[in-house]
Amino acid sequence: MSDIKYSFGLWTVGWPANDPFGTATRPALDPAESIHKLAELGAWGFTYHDNDVFEFGATEAERQAGIDAVKKASQESGLVCEMVTTNTFSHPIFKDGAFTSNNRDVRRFGLKKVLRSVDNAAEMGASTFVMWGGREGTEYDNSKDLHAAHARYAEGIDTVAAYIKDKGYDLRIGLEPKPNEPRGDIFLPTIGHAIALINTLDNGDIVGLNPETGHEQMAGLNYTHGLALALYCGKLFHIDLNGQHGPRYDQDLVFGHGDLLSAFFTVDLLENGFPNGGPRYEGPRHFDYKPSRTEYLDGVWESAKANMETYDMLAAKAKAYREDAEVQAAFEHAGIVELAEPTLGADESFDAFLADPTVDIDADAVAERDYGLVRLHQLALRHLIG
Amino acid sequence: MSDIKYSFGLWTVGWPANDPFGTATRPALDPAESIHKLAELGAWGFTYHDNDVFEFGATEAERQAGIDAVKKASQESGLVCEMVTTNTFSHPIFKDGAFTSNNRDVRRFGLKKVLRSVDNAAEMGASTFVMWGGREGTEYDNSKDLHAAHARYAEGIDTVAAYIKDKGYDLRIGLEPKPNEPRGDIFLPTIGHAIALINTLDNGDIVGLNPETGHEQMAGLNYTHGLALALYCGKLFHIDLNGQHGPRYDQDLVFGHGDLLSAFFTVDLLENGFPNGGPRYEGPRHFDYKPSRTEYLDGVWESAKANMETYDMLAAKAKAYREDAEVQAAFEHAGIVELAEPTLGADESFDAFLADPTVDIDADAVAERDYGLVRLHQLALRHLIG
Amino acid sequence: MSDIKYSFGLWTVGWPANDPFGTATRPALDPAESIHKLAELGAWGFTYHDNDVFEFGATEAERQAGIDAVKKASQESGLVCEMVTTNTFSHPIFKDGAFTSNNRDVRRFGLKKVLRSVDNAAEMGASTFVMWGGREGTEYDNSKDLHAAHARYAEGIDTVAAYIKDKGYDLRIGLEPKPNEPRGDIFLPTIGHAIALINTLDNGDIVGLNPETGHEQMAGLNYTHGLALALYCGKLFHIDLNGQHGPRYDQDLVFGHGDLLSAFFTVDLLENGFPNGGPRYEGPRHFDYKPSRTEYLDGVWESAKANMETYDMLAAKAKAYREDAEVQAAFEHAGIVELAEPTLGADESFDAFLADPTVDIDADAVAERDYGLVRLHQLALRHLIG
Amino acid sequence: MSDIKYSFGLWTVGWPANDPFGTATRPALDPAESIHKLAELGAWGFTYHDNDVFEFGATEAERQAGIDAVKKASQESGLVCEMVTTNTFSHPIFKDGAFTSNNRDVRRFGLKKVLRSVDNAAEMGASTFVMWGGREGTEYDNSKDLHAAHARYAEGIDTVAAYIKDKGYDLRIGLEPKPNEPRGDIFLPTIGHAIALINTLDNGDIVGLNPETGHEQMAGLNYTHGLALALYCGKLFHIDLNGQHGPRYDQDLVFGHGDLLSAFFTVDLLENGFPNGGPRYEGPRHFDYKPSRTEYLDGVWESAKANMETYDMLAAKAKAYREDAEVQAAFEHAGIVELAEPTLGADESFDAFLADPTVDIDADAVAERDYGLVRLHQLALRHLIG
Repeated sequence: MSDIKYSFGLWTVGWPANDPFGTATRPALDPAESIHKLAELGAWGFTYHDNDVFEFGATEAERQAGIDAVKKASQESGLVCEMVTTNTFSHPIFKDGAFTSNNRDVRRFGLKKVLRSVDNAAEMGASTFVMWGGREGTEYDNSKDLHAAHARYAEGIDTVAAYIKDKGYDLRIGLEPKPNEPRGDIFLPTIGHAIALINTLDNGDIVGLNPETGHEQMAGLNYTHGLALALYCGKLFHIDLNGQHGPRYDQDLVFGHGDLLSAFFTVDLLENGFPNGGPRYEGPRHFDYKPSRTEYLDGVWESAKANMETYDMLAAKAKAYREDAEVQAAFEHAGIVELAEPTLGADESFDAFLADPTVDIDADAVAERDYGLVRLHQLALRHLIG
Repeated sequence: MSDIKYSFGLWTVGWPANDPFGTATRPALDPAESIHKLAELGAWGFTYHDNDVFEFGATEAERQAGIDAVKKASQESGLVCEMVTTNTFSHPIFKDGAFTSNNRDVRRFGLKKVLRSVDNAAEMGASTFVMWGGREGTEYDNSKDLHAAHARYAEGIDTVAAYIKDKGYDLRIGLEPKPNEPRGDIFLPTIGHAIALINTLDNGDIVGLNPETGHEQMAGLNYTHGLALALYCGKLFHIDLNGQHGPRYDQDLVFGHGDLLSAFFTVDLLENGFPNGGPRYEGPRHFDYKPSRTEYLDGVWESAKANMETYDMLAAKAKAYREDAEVQAAFEHAGIVELAEPTLGADESFDAFLADPTVDIDADAVAERDYGLVRLHQLALRHLIG
Repeated sequence: MSDIKYSFGLWTVGWPANDPFGTATRPALDPAESIHKLAELGAWGFTYHDNDVFEFGATEAERQAGIDAVKKASQESGLVCEMVTTNTFSHPIFKDGAFTSNNRDVRRFGLKKVLRSVDNAAEMGASTFVMWGGREGTEYDNSKDLHAAHARYAEGIDTVAAYIKDKGYDLRIGLEPKPNEPRGDIFLPTIGHAIALINTLDNGDIVGLNPETGHEQMAGLNYTHGLALALYCGKLFHIDLNGQHGPRYDQDLVFGHGDLLSAFFTVDLLENGFPNGGPRYEGPRHFDYKPSRTEYLDGVWESAKANMETYDMLAAKAKAYREDAEVQAAFEHAGIVELAEPTLGADESFDAFLADPTVDIDADAVAERDYGLVRLHQLALRHLIG
Repeated sequence: MSDIKYSFGLWTVGWPANDPFGTATRPALDPAESIHKLAELGAWGFTYHDNDVFEFGATEAERQAGIDAVKKASQESGLVCEMVTTNTFSHPIFKDGAFTSNNRDVRRFGLKKVLRSVDNAAEMGASTFVMWGGREGTEYDNSKDLHAAHARYAEGIDTVAAYIKDKGYDLRIGLEPKPNEPRGDIFLPTIGHAIALINTLDNGDIVGLNPETGHEQMAGLNYTHGLALALYCGKLFHIDLNGQHGPRYDQDLVFGHGDLLSAFFTVDLLENGFPNGGPRYEGPRHFDYKPSRTEYLDGVWESAKANMETYDMLAAKAKAYREDAEVQAAFEHAGIVELAEPTLGADESFDAFLADPTVDIDADAVAERDYGLVRLHQLALRHLIG
C-alpha cells in the first residue's frame, strides 16, 4: 500500500445493499468494527453521517454512545476522522427538502440537525464538513418558488458557515453537487452551480466543494474538467471518488470501475498537478462508493481494497507517464506549455494589440498545424495498458 | 401576434441544412432579405455572427458592405439588432479553440476577431454581445493544461469586458454554456460553470449568461432551474430558446417542440416571474433553432413562425394558470408562499435558535404533510392541455 | 371519465415511497382497499405481483388468504384482474438474477415461483402474464457468461410459455424490457432486444412485450417508435404507461408528466392507430407509475386520477387532431399516405425495375421538395395546447 | 503488429474533418493512396461507400474509374476489400430517408443506388454488404406512418437480400443500428431492434448485423452485451469498432479511447469467446472512427495506428487474463461455469420439477452466497493496468 491518504465513508462499507427494488442482502455493520477493519486494510481516515453512528431520534445518551464508540475506535485504530456530514435525506420529514423545504418548521428542524453535526465534526477533529442536499429539489417545476428555494438554500449554507466562524471551529464546508436522484432535479446539480451559489454568500470563504466522480458523470460532464474549474476558483476542499457509467442511476461503483481513462486523468491531476503548475488538491483521497449488492461481507472488504489498489495502480502509471520524456516532448509539441503564456503581453494596451501586425496571421496556413493530440492520448494509453 | 419582443439569429433561418452526414438542402439566404421576412412574420429583433453577414477573410470593403446591408435592412424593416456575436468556431484555425487554443498566435488572432465584433455590436446599437466558446474544449483530458485553459479563457473574456468599458460601449456580455459538441467536452459546460468563472473576473460585472434551452438539456439538466440560478446571481442577460430531446446531439428544434412541459414552465417564469417576486428577465425572447433539414424555404418560415406561435400559446396558458384561484390556493397549500420566509427570524441569534423549543417538532407527525405537489402539477397540465 | 379501459398495478398506489436514500413516507395500503378505491376513481382493471398480495415466504394459508382477498375485492368492485406478474427481484436470493442467476438452485427456485404465479394468473382470469427481469443482468461484463445468460433467459421464458400451453391456460406472456436499474446493465434492455430473443423460442408465439414508457426513454429511445416496431412484429401484448425525463433513474412519473408531446403521439397511436391502418393495440391502458414520495395518501389518489385524466385529455385532443381536414391535407402533402405504397410494383422483376427509366430522377430537383413536416408537427401542437 | 485482421473504412482516414460547426481542416485523400498507406501500417482490409470512390451523380466512366482505382490499389497493396456499403444519407434527396422516404420516387431511386452497390460489392469480392439507414427516421412522431415506415424498411432490406440471392452473390447483409443523429430518432435504433425486424423478412437468413461500439453506447447500452445477443441469435456478421463517451453526439473516437474497460471486455469476447464456449465472431476487426478534427495528416495516420495498437494491447491482456488460474478459479467461484447448465434437467417434466423437494431451498441462507463479482472484476482490472 502506498502512503496516499485514503479515506472511506462508514456508510460505504456499511451499506446493507437495499435498493429501490430489493431489500438488504447484508447485515448492518458495527461502525467501530468498520473503522478497525478499514485501518487493517490500509486506509488513513474515515467519515460519517450523524445517523451512521446513532439513529434519527436517538436520545442524548444513545447519541453520545454512538459518537464515543467511533471516537474510541478512531483512537485505537489510528484512523483519522477527517470529515463529518449530516443525514438530511432519509427521514420522511425531509421528503420535500431540508434547507429548501416549503415547510419552515422543517427548515428549522433541519438546520438544527446540521448545526449539531457541525459541533460533532469539531469535536471529532474533522477538517471538512460536507453538505449534500439530496432532497433539495423538485420533481415538478412548480413545486417550489425557484427563487425562494435558492435564497433559502443560500441562507442555510451561509448560516452554517457563520456558525462555524462564530464557534471558532477549524472547519471548512464542502458542498456536494448532484444532478438528480432521489429528486427529479436537485438544486446545485453540478460543480459549477455550487460555486456560483457560494459566490453569493457572506461567509463563502469557508465554503467550497466535495465533488463526486459519478455525480458529474450522471450529467455527462467531465469530472477532471470539473475539478480543474474548482481548483481554478479555489474551491476544491474535499473529494468523493467512485465509478459510474454515464447518465443513469447513481451506481457508486469502485473507483476506476466506471470510466477508467477518466479515472487515470483524475489521478494524474490529483497526484501530479497541472502540467504548468497551479493550485493543488491537498485533502484526502476519499471514496464514496457502494459494494455491489451481489456481494456478501467478503465482497465488502474486497471492494474497499479495490478502491485503494486501483488508485495506487493509476498513481504509479500517472507518475511514469508524466516523467516520460516522449510525453513531455509531446506536451511541448501540442502547445500545452505555451498555453500557460498570457494571450496579451504584459501591459500590452488595446491600441498596441490591435495595431500589432503579427496578429494578422495567415489563418489557412496556421490551421494546418498538427497538434498531435491523438498521439499524445495514445502515449497515455500505452502507459496505462501497455 | 402578441407584443412580446421576439428575436431571431440570422443563422437560424439562414442555416442551409448541412449536417455531419449530409450536404446543404437549401440555398443560402440573403441576410437582408431574412431581416425583412422576419419583420413581416412579426419578429421584433435579429442577431448575427460576424460571418453571417461577411465571410471569414473578407476585405474591409466586403466587411463593410455586409454590415451596411443588414443595417439598411434593419432601418427599413424596423427590426432591431439586439445582439451580435463572433464566429470563432467554423474556420480550421480555431480547431483547437480560440481563447484557449494551445497556439498563442491563434488566441491573439481570435481575440482581435472578437474585439472587432464588439466594435460592430456597438455600431449596430446592440445591447448584448454573446460569446459561445464552441471550440474551447478537448476530446482528451491531456490535450490541454486544464488550469491554463481556464486562465486563458478567463483572460480572454475579461479582456473583452475591459475593452467594452474602455470604449464606453453600452454592451453586456452573455456567455453561452454548452456541455459538448463540437468538442468532446467544452469548457463552461453549464450555466453554473459559466457563472463560477465570471466571478473570478475583474470586469465580471458586465459579464452574464445567454443560456440555451437545449444546451442545458443535453446535460440532462433542468433549464428553468438553471434560469432561476442565473437570475438569483443577477446574471441572466440574454436567452436562447429552442427544443431538444435530452442527452444527444444538439437538435435546435423549434421552441416547445422538445420538452413541452419544461417550455411551459420556462415561459411561465419569463412572463410571470417567480411566485413570490424577485428578479425578472428583461431581455428579448431570442430563438436559436434550426429549421429541420427536411424542409425547404416554406418550411424555414413556417418553423420561424412556429417558435413565436408556440411561445404565444404558452404565454397565454401560463397567464391563465397563474391567475387561477385554485392554483393560488394550491400554491398556498404546498407551502410555496411560505418558502419566501427566511428560516431564521430577523436577528435571531444562534443561541436563541438552538434554545427554541419549537424547533424540536414531532418529526414523524410533520412528515405526514401532503404537499399536494402532484395535484398542483396536474392543475398546470390542465391549463396547458385541458 | 371516458370508457377507456384503465388499469393499475397494486404496487403503484401501494408504493410506500421508500427510495435508495430514504425510508417510507406512507403506510402500506391494503390491496383489497386499493382495488375498491381504484374502482371508485373509474379504473377498469388491476394487476399485481405475487408479493403484492402475500409476502415472500408466506405459508400456503397466508398465500391463499391474500389471493382470496383480492379476488373478493375484484368481485365486489367489478375491477378486472387483467394481468399478474411475479416478484423475482426484491428478495436477496435474486441478487444475481433469477432465470440467469449463476446459481442453478436459485434459477430453479425462481422458476417455480414464476410457475406458481402463472397458476394464480389463470385462476384470477388474467389474460396477460408479465415478466420483468429486473435482476437479470450485471454490473461487470465478466460477472456472467453472456452466452449462457441469454441461453438461460431464453430457457426460462420458453419453459414458462410451455407450461402455459401444457396447462391450457388462456394466457400470453409480456416481457418488460429495461436498460438498467437496479442492475448496471439488464439483459433485454429494449423492446428490440426482447423481440429478438422471443424469436429464438420454441413457444414464442405466446410471448410478446409489455413495454414501459419510461424504460425506453431511459435509453433515450422513442417510445412510440418502439410500440410501432412491436406492433409490426405482432408483439404488443400489454403496455405500461408512465412518465420519465430521459436518461436517469427510473422516475415512474404520472403518464404525461414526463415528455408530454411524446405522450400525445403515444395516445394518438393507441386510440387512432396508424394513419394508413395496420395492427392495433387491443389491451388495457395500464399505468405503472409511482405517486411522488412527497405525497401522503391524498396525493396517492390524486396522482392515480391524474393518469386517467391526462390520458383522457390527450385522447380527446388526438381524436380532433386526426379528424382535422387541415391535418389530413398535411398528411397527404407530406407523403404520409404515399408511404403505404410498396416501393416495388406488384410482381415487378429486378430486371424491369433496373431498366425502368423513371427511376433515374433528377435528384437535385426532387431534393427541393418541402415535406412540410415542421408545419405538420405544429398543427399537432396547436391541437394539443392551442 | 499481430496477425489479427484489421480493416478500415476509407471514409475514416479520409474524413476531411468538417463538422456541424466547422469546415474541413484537412484535404481530401485519394482513396488509392489511403489503401496503400493502410497496408503499410499493417491493416489487412478496407471498406468503402460507393461515394467514397466516385461522386454522387458520377458518369458511368467516372464511376468505373473510381472503382478501378481502388481495385488496382487493392491488388497492388494486398489489402482486401472485405465490405462495401452505400451512401444513402449525404445527398439532399435522402433528407427524408431512402428506403423509408415518404416519396416513392426517392425510395426507388435509393433502392437502385443500393443494388448497384451490391453489384460492386460482389465485383470487389467483398463478403459483407453493410446498410446504415442514417436518414431512415424522424424528428417528429407524426412525420411518418410508423407502420408503413417499418413495412417499407423491411421491404427494402428484403429486396436487397433477394437480389443478392437472385444474382448468386456470396454476400451477407450487415445492418448497422444507430439511435439518433443525423435524424432525431432513427428506425432500428439498437442491435435488438434490427434483429427483430430481420426476423420478419423472407430472406432474413442472409441479413445480420454490423453493430458499432459508439452507436450502442449513445443509447447508454452495453456494447458487449449487445454483441452477445447478436451472437446468440446468429446475427453477428460484421463489426464496427470505435470509441464514445456515452449519450451525446456520435464521437467516432479511436477504439479504446472511449470506455476502456468496456473495450477490454469486447476484445476478450472477440478474441477468446464466451467462457463456456458458444458461437464466435469470425469476421474482420473493422474500425469505423474519425481522426480528431484537431489533427492534420500526421494525426490521421497516428490515429489509424492507435486503433490497431490498442486492440493489440487489449488482446494480449485479455489472453493473459483468461489463462490466469486465479481468474479461472474466480469464474468457478462466481458460478460462471454453472450458468452453462440448463435450469431444468434433461427431460425433466413439469410435474417432476414442481414436486422436486430440492427446489424449495432456504432462501435466506442461499442469499448469503458471496459471488465474488467485484473481486473478479478487479482481477480483470489488474491484468489491464497492473
